[in-house]
Amino acid sequence: MSPADKPVRIGMLGCGVVGSSVARLLLADTAELSTRAGVKMELSRIAVRTIKPYEGINPSLFTTDPFSIVNDPEIDLIIEVMGGIEPARELIMTAIENRKSVVTANKALLASHGAEMFTAAYAKGEDIYYEASVAGAIPIIRPMRDSLAGDFVTRLMGIVNGTTNYILTKMHEDDREFADVLKEAQALGYAEADPTADVEGFDAAAKAAILSGLAFHTRVTVDDVYREGISKITLEDVKIAKSMDHVIKLLAIAELTPADEISVRVHPVMLHKSHPLASVRDAYNAVFVEAESAGSLMFYGRGAGGAPTASAILGDVVAVARHIALNSVGQRETDYADRDIAPIESTKTKFLIRLEVADKAGVLASIATTFANHGVSIQTVNQAGRNDDAEVTIVTHLATEGELKATVESLKKMDAVQNISSVIRVEGATSA
Amino acid sequence: MSPADKPVRIGMLGCGVVGSSVARLLLADTAELSTRAGVKMELSRIAVRTIKPYEGINPSLFTTDPFSIVNDPEIDLIIEVMGGIEPARELIMTAIENRKSVVTANKALLASHGAEMFTAAYAKGEDIYYEASVAGAIPIIRPMRDSLAGDFVTRLMGIVNGTTNYILTKMHEDDREFADVLKEAQALGYAEADPTADVEGFDAAAKAAILSGLAFHTRVTVDDVYREGISKITLEDVKIAKSMDHVIKLLAIAELTPADEISVRVHPVMLHKSHPLASVRDAYNAVFVEAESAGSLMFYGRGAGGAPTASAILGDVVAVARHIALNSVGQRETDYADRDIAPIESTKTKFLIRLEVADKAGVLASIATTFANHGVSIQTVNQAGRNDDAEVTIVTHLATEGELKATVESLKKMDAVQNISSVIRVEGATSA
Repeated sequence: MSPADKPVRIGMLGCGVVGSSVARLLLADTAELSTRAGVKMELSRIAVRTIKPYEGINPSLFTTDPFSIVNDPEIDLIIEVMGGIEPARELIMTAIENRKSVVTANKALLASHGAEMFTAAYAKGEDIYYEASVAGAIPIIRPMRDSLAGDFVTRLMGIVNGTTNYILTKMHEDDREFADVLKEAQALGYAEADPTADVEGFDAAAKAAILSGLAFHTRVTVDDVYREGISKITLEDVKIAKSMDHVIKLLAIAELTPADEISVRVHPVMLHKSHPLASVRDAYNAVFVEAESAGSLMFYGRGAGGAPTASAILGDVVAVARHIALNSVGQRETDYADRDIAPIESTKTKFLIRLEVADKAGVLASIATTFANHGVSIQTVNQAGRNDDAEVTIVTHLATEGELKATVESLKKMDAVQNISSVIRVEGATSA
Repeated sequence: MSPADKPVRIGMLGCGVVGSSVARLLLADTAELSTRAGVKMELSRIAVRTIKPYEGINPSLFTTDPFSIVNDPEIDLIIEVMGGIEPARELIMTAIENRKSVVTANKALLASHGAEMFTAAYAKGEDIYYEASVAGAIPIIRPMRDSLAGDFVTRLMGIVNGTTNYILTKMHEDDREFADVLKEAQALGYAEADPTADVEGFDAAAKAAILSGLAFHTRVTVDDVYREGISKITLEDVKIAKSMDHVIKLLAIAELTPADEISVRVHPVMLHKSHPLASVRDAYNAVFVEAESAGSLMFYGRGAGGAPTASAILGDVVAVARHIALNSVGQRETDYADRDIAPIESTKTKFLIRLEVADKAGVLASIATTFANHGVSIQTVNQAGRNDDAEVTIVTHLATEGELKATVESLKKMDAVQNISSVIRVEGATSA
């Protein structure tokens, strides 16, 4: 196909680390990318808060008025890389109203207002593409939505936040405490000054919502995602995990329950070291998908950074520009299955519980009885004495969160139990 | 989007392990898959060599005349899973001539006659989709063609043949010889009675041609691919690799040379165990891709089998059915870059060479001189004596195939060199 005469004109909202990467690559490679799209593309306008010089970008492209871009009838395609909910939401909705297709990397917006945006775009016959919103450069949206369109996903587990994976990797490999590594990560620019969004799992929860919605053909928002971060994980937890051939990872997990509900959650997990996700180190991301026909799949790569995110955005830009030229639209997410979200209390996993107890006869028996009374079956018990106290490490068989919580409440009331040091979920290649 | 009134009618050519999986899944899940495609789909005809009962498939669908399907004006979409070059090629070309889109898993046909088929399909405005042709269930065609459309691939390395990866895994983990494991694999049905296509790398070479064509926007055929199989790999080679923290894998490798040519080849490789591909075991496949902006990506999953391959085919069927309903076409491979294929002699890798030599003074010096005379720099030398002989294991720095071949020829002529036991290329995390 030879490039059509009328170019696809592109406006970009935001020009930070990702946006400036997108602009530079798009300007430098316009000819090749246009050949791939089958239509000439042109980066026409860029909205920024303050106009300043950007290397390799013509200053005449900039404006401080983003609405002038989404209201410009000459612009066909909007790249949104400003982030945040407002004004990004209003700008995108205005762009769609004005019949422009949208490429966005805005996971927070998609995970909170996705339904509204998709509905509007589909009504107008426009694309919303968002490959860059989850796991940076890793193709995961397109495989989930397009490649697996003929299959049935049953479960996915992902390392989708690079900052926390970096921190956990350092805790494992250098035997360091969480706070110590976090401080270093902040100094290196791997973690924000306010690290809450990463460390407490909010970023991963937004990505979990996006992926589970695609996987299970249901609208899932970030409010549907159960969430725990890694700030309570101690070096002692890490050492115990390692002694049991496991590693601790912050995972986004989404799976169908036996009742055909969606269980979707983000929390630290003890993962057996033989699991493919266990060897994903540093700031790398990976998503492990199980589907009925395909079996197990894994997608691995860089989850953040200017150039990797720009790669994902430009892949979307080529596809959407092509659809504009062909007067067509791409594959769409569907919500026909409309499944319910399972309450976290009914989610089944295994648990590791570490207890400090008085080291005297009968304590272990009474602890075991407490587990049994709540219907929680014990897989392994390990007791290590120290002076008059003992530390007991228990791994359960599959139990619901509700059963486990009730067990922990009862344990806390026992005189012999001095402290419950940690409760961590266990996933991977251990027998059920 | 509500399914359009006119269904997309599907005809299938072949009904073996993959075809029968496709038919059963498509018949069982028609309603859901149609919702995802946005158009009603209908499996209308299946061509087989001999009509026999298939569980779960209505016998009235079968015909022994495949041309009646590709010439049927009521059929919109052809799934080709018969394999082989002819009559598959003629049937697909006839289908395209009759304005039908095609989904095929036929790697041999694509790697030999791809250009002809793509040119015809594009002239008629039809899709040819072929996700299942490489690495079974793993989404790799779509990520290469669509997700990376805004990026520049520099290199890819893949384990794309499950049979050889199974054999090599057993050799490493159970300390067994090639012939022994092959016999077992044949008994288990993992290897064919005539294992040549797998074991000698022909299957992997076809996949290398397909992937490198996509990666480098150039038509690449199987004849362009340099090929060596694994039948000469001995248990001794495996043991030496392991002793050096490497594993031996059969890899398909495609990379851009400094002269912007494409080096594309299939051969056994000693891979450092820290490389993500090193831990891909048994019949699993994985493709490792390096791109300028995205950095390193890896795609992992089941490379063969009825259901996994059917998953890939049905993802294509949903996409192509959607394009038919929208009167559109999907992203296309391009060949605008039209790069030359680099001769194997100019390809640079490191090599491991194992020599049996007479154990006397000066031998090592004369061997080292021979390497130096051919411009091949030595990274490590390891000499182990046994009686009057010694075994010398040499790992080189980067050298061209041509330089290495010349070195080996000279070594063979030396009196002190009794035998050259093996020459294996080395890739991965060793320093250059």
